[in-house]
Amino acid sequence: MARIAEARPPASPMSEGQVARRDRILDAATELGARADLDHVQMTDVAKDAGVAIGTLYRYFPSKTHLFAAVFEAQLGKLLGRLWPDESEDLVSDIGEVLVALSRELLRRPRLCAAMVQCAATNYTSGPFGSAERDSALFHAILDTLTRSAPGEEVESTVRLLVFSWWGVLISRLSGKTTTKQADADIRLATRRLVGPLLPFR
Amino acid sequence: MARIAEARPPASPMSEGQVARRDRILDAATELGARADLDHVQMTDVAKDAGVAIGTLYRYFPSKTHLFAAVFEAQLGKLLGRLWPDESEDLVSDIGEVLVALSRELLRRPRLCAAMVQCAATNYTSGPFGSAERDSALFHAILDTLTRSAPGEEVESTVRLLVFSWWGVLISRLSGKTTTKQADADIRLATRRLVGPLLPFR
Repeated sequence: MARIAEARPPASPMSEGQVARRDRILDAATELGARADLDHVQMTDVAKDAGVAIGTLYRYFPSKTHLFAAVFEAQLGKLLGRLWPDESEDLVSDIGEVLVALSRELLRRPRLCAAMVQCAATNYTSGPFGSAERDSALFHAILDTLTRSAPGEEVESTVRLLVFSWWGVLISRLSGKTTTKQADADIRLATRRLVGPLLPFR
Repeated sequence: MARIAEARPPASPMSEGQVARRDRILDAATELGARADLDHVQMTDVAKDAGVAIGTLYRYFPSKTHLFAAVFEAQLGKLLGRLWPDESEDLVSDIGEVLVALSRELLRRPRLCAAMVQCAATNYTSGPFGSAERDSALFHAILDTLTRSAPGEEVESTVRLLVFSWWGVLISRLSGKTTTKQADADIRLATRRLVGPLLPFR
């Protein structure tokens, strides 16, 4: 049964039980999204696999688009927690390598990656509840790190452009328009050119 | 009546009459897309306004997505023909200003811009007939100019990253997540940082 997404933000989880329920939903969506194309992932199956009522699922995620945009953020958050360096001798190179590793990890499950990217993009362009790049884990991981090392006016613009570039490279790779080698080289080049000038004295 | 996009490339126009017919279709779609949201643009109305049979329309454009992706390319081509400098004293600055002007022009009709961007993105990510960035007028305008002035290995990567950045800034602006001033500054910064190092001796 199709439902029209309502013009309201997804419910925020509050209690421990709610957080656990939301995590179960995200895990179920991750598994289903890795196995079938987005069009064939049914919200009823997500609810069933997560062990929640369909109404509960829609309370957290008003649409499949919201759901997979949230899966994207959850995946990014987890991967960044694992990949982001605590300290860095060479920030430009380290950020480049994290971005390369990030897209490689996401591309290991191309079907899920396509679903997440499509939903995040739709969510982003379609209104005030989108996972704007400024709200995303990736944007903030880079911004926080750079702000400590390179305070200045252009840091936010730099991070936006780097995220846009990374995003473009990911989509290009996902659609088979570039090779893995090219994609990796593009990400490293973007990081060097965009972030490099912020750290001129290192 | 909805039609499923067939897995074949759009017919290429050949004769003068066919070119004229394709242009009339693109003009009709442009006008309709500027007035109504994409969901409310009907292929039957496009055919009617262009003065062609519905079958003819679908022969040129297998789906609304193909149609508006083609409108995007046509708009970009026209604008670039007008905005791209014949000669340049300062290529980095000139490319930046063209990119700024380009998004401003496209954003003058936000509804049409949203439709074009959404369709071009879907087309790009969904298969071999997409208007890949390497086939697009924008990619080639920049690449051809830079290849003459700055031959080298990283030119193609640079152009890809610049187009991705421009694209990200356009979407960001379109969805109201940045101001015009920020968007313009971001595009100029992207051009300076990405293209600047290719022309170190100017």
